[in-house]
Amino acid sequence: MLFFFFFFPLLYHIYLIRLIILMSQKRIILEVRPFLEDSIKDAFTSGIPNCVKLADLGCASGPNALSAISEIIHTIHGMSRGMNCKSPEFQVFLNDLPGNDFNNIFSLLPDFYEKLTKEDGTLGNCFITGVPGSFYSRIFPSRSLDFVHSSCSVHWLSQAPAGLEKNKGHIYIANGSPPTVIQAYTNQFQRDFSLFLGLRSEEIKPGGRMVITTIGRSMEDPSGGECCDLLELLAKSLSDMLAEGLIEEADLNSLNFAFYFPSEGEVRALVQEEGSFNLDKLVTFEASWDPFDESDKYRGAQNVANYMRSIAEPTLTSHFGGIIIGNLFGRYADHLAKHLLMEEGKYFFMVISLTNK
Amino acid sequence: MLFFFFFFPLLYHIYLIRLIILMSQKRIILEVRPFLEDSIKDAFTSGIPNCVKLADLGCASGPNALSAISEIIHTIHGMSRGMNCKSPEFQVFLNDLPGNDFNNIFSLLPDFYEKLTKEDGTLGNCFITGVPGSFYSRIFPSRSLDFVHSSCSVHWLSQAPAGLEKNKGHIYIANGSPPTVIQAYTNQFQRDFSLFLGLRSEEIKPGGRMVITTIGRSMEDPSGGECCDLLELLAKSLSDMLAEGLIEEADLNSLNFAFYFPSEGEVRALVQEEGSFNLDKLVTFEASWDPFDESDKYRGAQNVANYMRSIAEPTLTSHFGGIIIGNLFGRYADHLAKHLLMEEGKYFFMVISLTNK
Repeated sequence: MLFFFFFFPLLYHIYLIRLIILMSQKRIILEVRPFLEDSIKDAFTSGIPNCVKLADLGCASGPNALSAISEIIHTIHGMSRGMNCKSPEFQVFLNDLPGNDFNNIFSLLPDFYEKLTKEDGTLGNCFITGVPGSFYSRIFPSRSLDFVHSSCSVHWLSQAPAGLEKNKGHIYIANGSPPTVIQAYTNQFQRDFSLFLGLRSEEIKPGGRMVITTIGRSMEDPSGGECCDLLELLAKSLSDMLAEGLIEEADLNSLNFAFYFPSEGEVRALVQEEGSFNLDKLVTFEASWDPFDESDKYRGAQNVANYMRSIAEPTLTSHFGGIIIGNLFGRYADHLAKHLLMEEGKYFFMVISLTNK
Repeated sequence: MLFFFFFFPLLYHIYLIRLIILMSQKRIILEVRPFLEDSIKDAFTSGIPNCVKLADLGCASGPNALSAISEIIHTIHGMSRGMNCKSPEFQVFLNDLPGNDFNNIFSLLPDFYEKLTKEDGTLGNCFITGVPGSFYSRIFPSRSLDFVHSSCSVHWLSQAPAGLEKNKGHIYIANGSPPTVIQAYTNQFQRDFSLFLGLRSEEIKPGGRMVITTIGRSMEDPSGGECCDLLELLAKSLSDMLAEGLIEEADLNSLNFAFYFPSEGEVRALVQEEGSFNLDKLVTFEASWDPFDESDKYRGAQNVANYMRSIAEPTLTSHFGGIIIGNLFGRYADHLAKHLLMEEGKYFFMVISLTNK
């Protein structure tokens, strides 16, 4: 395999990025697994419907698109066996934006179904469907879902907020961002997350459950979050390119990512204020920016840069054109390495379990 | 536009083929429309559920993938207005094989939703999902669907039948085919269509309706169907290429298309024998092979060849390799022209409406 990649370095690069994405998501799935299992057991302790309707929001299209769903199905099936009941049927709705590569997920399904049946022949029929659409709009019929899962998706805002003209040289909330910028981001998240809760409340059956994993921040101050550094180092790399005349100032100033990384306090307050759901449980955990936790910080920085590239490249390409990307992420890896040599880089994750009232 | 195509003849060819497919499907939709409307009215005359669950089986991915669904939604919405009821919600399941280009259908959805709302602001929420899978297996939960539609799909068998070794020089049932070949095709269709009915009966609610349009044959003799000629002319073109040493004899002899075009009698008997559905209504109609009905038979033949190419190319390419395709369909157009100069070429269609017992 290594011999093969020696002659095809681009294929090696693609392989490496896929591996990094796989690892990044895999460790979140492993970390969240006990919490998810508990929530499922709570949700179906009083009975399992004949057909369990599950949704995964922001499923993406990579090799992990079916991992969480597989976990959920196996847990519910295990419960039905424990209750000496026939395994229910499962109707699964995989959701992402219409531009997501659903063809790729669908090509994985024949193997997925075969694996499910091989692992356990008593498992009920499982029907997987694709639902293209933004979860900031209605995407399912009223009161039709039993259990909703979403991992690393609700920190994507419906759009970058308006009123960020003063966020010059930054691409997200940074230490130097004026209060109006912080307020604009905070307001956008409040609107979006409340909308998200309200819409899901219409779609989930009364008493139905939702488990959300999101990237957040450990401190209450929005300009001090763990991801601010990560994005500010990317902004720095862009500023270097601006200084060398490789990009336009107006282009850098008008770029603001449509992310928000909330604090625990914000999430708790918004759930209560919106009022549709009870927050049953909230846990937090940290994970290194580098999914391989390399001791060599230069290699670690390269992993983080590759991962961030997989997330940010579409936005950056449509903003600056594709020609700057290689150069930009080379610089970004350098900045990341300097940072990682001085201090650890960590994501802060929050997992919440909600019950529809 | 014509000026543009003068410089890009390949694009013109693609455009033409898309137009031919569009026209071929459009005229079927127009022909079936009154029948479909009547069946919908019958199905929902005693009441419309809060959320109507519709499925389209074998939806493909072209510009007509959403046409039948749009018709069905508008008819049911019109009924709800006539009953002075609030418009129901619609959950739509578009099904085809996992290799179908669902991404293309999903890219049409934002415009489709916008058009639905523009045409009628009182229309209830509509949620469209993709369901990859063969309709010769279970693809939906038990008793979950209100109305199922399928156009030009159930004449595709689950596979070409076994036992066709003696069908040398032919690619489907032909005048010279031995009785064992005819029997093998007939048996395969009987097994597949009965299986299809049994599976759908498990998935459709009791009293729910299914409308199927299929290509069939007007006579009872299976070797005399309208499509036998169409496929036999393709077999002739392949035989010409064999005579010139352009393809291998073994390859031609082992090619048999997985189609079957049933007679009215066969369909009626199978529905009754399988027993899950009542056959409410069956109508038939004819349509010219050439969707444009050109008076110039050479141009007509080219249209038919282009249309057949869009259907048969994947099978032929995987069997003979792509290199023969252009040559083959050139010869096919010649054979078709000779045929059309002597007699009309017609498809025979059957539309049936079934109620789940």
